[in-house]
Amino acid sequence: MSQSLNIPSAAISRLVTYLRILEKLESQGINRTSSNDLAERAQVSAFQVRKDLAYFGRFGTRGMGYTVAVLKRELRRILGLTRPWNVVIMGMGRLGQAIAHYPGASDYEFSFVGLFDPDPSKVGMQIRNLEVMHPDHLKDFVRSHQVDMGFIAVPADRAQDVAQILVEAGVKGILNFAPVVIQPKMLERPGVEPEKEEEWEGVIVENIDFLAGMKRLAFYILNPGLRELEEVG
Amino acid sequence: MSQSLNIPSAAISRLVTYLRILEKLESQGINRTSSNDLAERAQVSAFQVRKDLAYFGRFGTRGMGYTVAVLKRELRRILGLTRPWNVVIMGMGRLGQAIAHYPGASDYEFSFVGLFDPDPSKVGMQIRNLEVMHPDHLKDFVRSHQVDMGFIAVPADRAQDVAQILVEAGVKGILNFAPVVIQPKMLERPGVEPEKEEEWEGVIVENIDFLAGMKRLAFYILNPGLRELEEVG
Repeated sequence: MSQSLNIPSAAISRLVTYLRILEKLESQGINRTSSNDLAERAQVSAFQVRKDLAYFGRFGTRGMGYTVAVLKRELRRILGLTRPWNVVIMGMGRLGQAIAHYPGASDYEFSFVGLFDPDPSKVGMQIRNLEVMHPDHLKDFVRSHQVDMGFIAVPADRAQDVAQILVEAGVKGILNFAPVVIQPKMLERPGVEPEKEEEWEGVIVENIDFLAGMKRLAFYILNPGLRELEEVG
Repeated sequence: MSQSLNIPSAAISRLVTYLRILEKLESQGINRTSSNDLAERAQVSAFQVRKDLAYFGRFGTRGMGYTVAVLKRELRRILGLTRPWNVVIMGMGRLGQAIAHYPGASDYEFSFVGLFDPDPSKVGMQIRNLEVMHPDHLKDFVRSHQVDMGFIAVPADRAQDVAQILVEAGVKGILNFAPVVIQPKMLERPGVEPEKEEEWEGVIVENIDFLAGMKRLAFYILNPGLRELEEVG
């Protein structure tokens, strides 16, 4: 796979969707699929499916479609889902707890290995065989447990600081569930030492907005004709 | 605004992000911004920002940037966030409860008006001033409360059925948090009457995958060079 290809991030999101569909097909005992079938299930065009897969090589036989198990295995490999990933969750409010219990993470090689919250009433709580820890222990924990990713499930006004704490601890991937866009740099704040942008070098931040889906729905309910054009751009 | 424009759904997602950034700027007392500033904060290119906004008209003055309050108001109007939207949540497990408590929904005109769960131990529970109801009451409730959207927070193997129940009740927008892609049609199942695809006419389904962000992170941690190309496609 060439590193020089221009792969839009939307294509990566769609690969994730295709993988989810392939897993469902496999669980239903369906062994073969096609770009048309995948397209219909993913609600995109067949052209889009073929284009997305073509970034990474040739998987099917022209006119014959794809073997579900083979394409699934290839997508898992492309997405890096064949190696273990250790994940911590920052914030053990309702959302953090819901994420900790979310089914399916263990279908891949993701493991929630540490849960953190500064609230004294939460430190020591047992959640899914893990004991909630104070963030003071994060840095040592990341090192000793080879943590790859941190999920942020704290209030919006704490999210940027918590992201900074994760980066300082050495975490390379951040998934932010707080309703705010995290800036991938140390922001200037009163009483805080100057910017340390270099620390964010190589750190990937994904901002997940619960409400974004709600806002998109509102737009499409008001503009139903535009929905069809979804994957044109 | 012309209905014949090809507006990619990714552009709608980005408008949602720009809106979130504008709200943050306004809360910080910042009155003006530019496509370069928005681009940096949204982690896309300035060209992308200008292109996304151009679908809907002209908002700034060339070389002068945008007035935060004006652009914010326009984006809210475009996204349909100036009229009230009534929302029900199906499933009052941890995830459904976390969603019901998610801050920020009320910053827009979204209201959670009904919470549903068939579990007898949950029916009657008080959550945020709402009493959890049995789904048997959904149809009457949707009619009497003019419900626009339904959120699905049930186990994956129940999600398609619950979506069908929402559609039968007259809901036009579905946001699915279960880890499965909902097919916008009645699926064939043993012992169930034949397809009623027409019922899904005009229904919008958005599938939210918690794990999708995790899988994208895995990909980008393994392929850090590709992250830069995010908004090229």
